[in-house]
Amino acid sequence: MPQQLDQGMVAIFTGDGKGKTTAAIGTVVRAAGHGFRACIICFLKGKDYIHGENSILSKLPNVTLTNFGQAGWVNRENINPEHKKQAGLALAAAKEAINSDKYDIIVLDEINITIDLGLIDLDKVIKLIKDRPKKMELILTGRYANPKLLQMADLVTEMKNIKHPFMRGVTARRGIDY
Amino acid sequence: MPQQLDQGMVAIFTGDGKGKTTAAIGTVVRAAGHGFRACIICFLKGKDYIHGENSILSKLPNVTLTNFGQAGWVNRENINPEHKKQAGLALAAAKEAINSDKYDIIVLDEINITIDLGLIDLDKVIKLIKDRPKKMELILTGRYANPKLLQMADLVTEMKNIKHPFMRGVTARRGIDY
Repeated sequence: MPQQLDQGMVAIFTGDGKGKTTAAIGTVVRAAGHGFRACIICFLKGKDYIHGENSILSKLPNVTLTNFGQAGWVNRENINPEHKKQAGLALAAAKEAINSDKYDIIVLDEINITIDLGLIDLDKVIKLIKDRPKKMELILTGRYANPKLLQMADLVTEMKNIKHPFMRGVTARRGIDY
Repeated sequence: MPQQLDQGMVAIFTGDGKGKTTAAIGTVVRAAGHGFRACIICFLKGKDYIHGENSILSKLPNVTLTNFGQAGWVNRENINPEHKKQAGLALAAAKEAINSDKYDIIVLDEINITIDLGLIDLDKVIKLIKDRPKKMELILTGRYANPKLLQMADLVTEMKNIKHPFMRGVTARRGIDY
């Protein structure tokens, strides 16, 4: 039987270090283990971006995962209209999920950088968070979390990069990094 | 069919913020999704400590989880002989797992603070890491990671606490925090 949180909180995992999305996935696995219903909406990584966790998460009856965005890294220089369109679709999906009464915990993956890149409107996200059902837990991930969101959050961890193999030229490894 | 990493790395998740063990669990879920065989050894939390992720992780055919330690928080003031015994058993289990040829990725959960508390010998851990099979991925979690381990690691993320609900008196919530 699904459980409900007494009081849902807003958690933010930000910073330049590895572990933001990974910690959100870990939280979902924990919550799902307790019978909570979880939804993960990825704002940036693209429909065809294959995460190892997909195949596991898709086997869990109470976890839903939806990818938006495009493959490859986005930055200010290579933003195209499709990025904006995808970000808008992701935000609409987030709104629908939050108001659906189907989930206890929702991860908005990479939403911080999506806001920072100007692909979605900060005020709309703030309203979404404020208007959510009181018992709903939200996790926002991604670099460059907006100060207004940090202020609204109950929990903020900065994943700070101290050392990363990419710094010495090692490329991302399938199964570990993606 | 299980896959193998070309070159296993040592990753450390340390710092005072939430997300260290959670990110390790997330990494295991991702790796397991790619067919890697994973083992999680918890050094401190106790055999009866129930993680929500247990029930999920225990359903994954290629993930093994073993808990050592005792329930409750350990600090310098309340260390007892059982803590030391449990930490020794955890280290022995880690050694066995590393040399078993059964796993591609091993999480040594809370090993950093276990070393810091003097419950296991740093040099033994260093030797264990150095002597591991080249393709094996290790993840070490916990506060107060030893500088010598940070130096050996390929990847280090400091999970830095920026804001935590415990700071305003909210207690840990089942399904989210444990």
